[in-house]
Amino acid sequence: MNEEFYTLKEAMLYSQRIGQLSKALWKAVEKDWQNWIKPYDLNINEHHILWISYHLEGATISDIAKFGVMHVSTAFNFSKKLEERGLLSFSKRDTDKRNTYVNVTPEGKELLERMYENYHDTTHSVIEGSIPIKEIYGKFPDFMEVTAVIRNIYGDDFMDIFEKSLQNIDNSTKPKSK
Amino acid sequence: MNEEFYTLKEAMLYSQRIGQLSKALWKAVEKDWQNWIKPYDLNINEHHILWISYHLEGATISDIAKFGVMHVSTAFNFSKKLEERGLLSFSKRDTDKRNTYVNVTPEGKELLERMYENYHDTTHSVIEGSIPIKEIYGKFPDFMEVTAVIRNIYGDDFMDIFEKSLQNIDNSTKPKSK
Repeated sequence: MNEEFYTLKEAMLYSQRIGQLSKALWKAVEKDWQNWIKPYDLNINEHHILWISYHLEGATISDIAKFGVMHVSTAFNFSKKLEERGLLSFSKRDTDKRNTYVNVTPEGKELLERMYENYHDTTHSVIEGSIPIKEIYGKFPDFMEVTAVIRNIYGDDFMDIFEKSLQNIDNSTKPKSK
Repeated sequence: MNEEFYTLKEAMLYSQRIGQLSKALWKAVEKDWQNWIKPYDLNINEHHILWISYHLEGATISDIAKFGVMHVSTAFNFSKKLEERGLLSFSKRDTDKRNTYVNVTPEGKELLERMYENYHDTTHSVIEGSIPIKEIYGKFPDFMEVTAVIRNIYGDDFMDIFEKSLQNIDNSTKPKSK
């Protein structure tokens, strides 16, 4: 497959570029994320699970694992912890006894909303670092190349959930200036 | 700073987009990287340190930490392990007694070259997932938006080292078809 379509050198250069950029970007995102959620006694996996459950409105553990890019056992264990804290609830469906569905409780929703309200209490280096692009183009970058690569790796399902979750924020959040 | 320049909703949407994309991209890169280096008894940090030392030709531990986006203690501990395995050597400079300089030994170079030769022995999902873009545009994506954001977060130094390391590959590797 793809024989002769690219040279080893091209692959090497590209792989170093994407490796270095994706590591640096993720580490910056991770640090901002950790600073933001620290006061709420959540780790990144827990917050990610809460957030996915909120946007998917009845996700299965395997949906959460897939969309959260985490192992099923990680998704399960942290969901269990969030359930014990009263932030998530588990249910079965009559039509589907095999899967466990995860829903955000009113307490979970309240917590997520409080976190959004306090979003600007911590530094978000990635947002700050993107402002010069917004100044030039009038909007934050949309990373079409990254999106295309991820669609090819993770599939259309993954991107559909991604777009749906962004749509939810777009519909639910009222515009409010910083 | 940046008061009223973007709404909370815009920040929220952008932060979810970049969070989700950067996590998914990094996890795919990480998996490809792990599969590639597994036969050589190295972890990602160790390989990254070897690679940085190779391209920087006399890096300090703090250069490695900065460019490798890792803690100084991580950079130090794994460099020490690589030194014990004979893949790196440490030295002091007469002009600078405070810093320890790290160099790749001939054994380290030989290992890195062997790894590049065997690059195609494992799957690189990120390369495979980028091929449709190469088919359309004639080259692998260059991620200009991500690069700009990272330059703003990590500074010009970081990008200079990045460009230098890519240049090194460009000059040293002979074109060879897959």
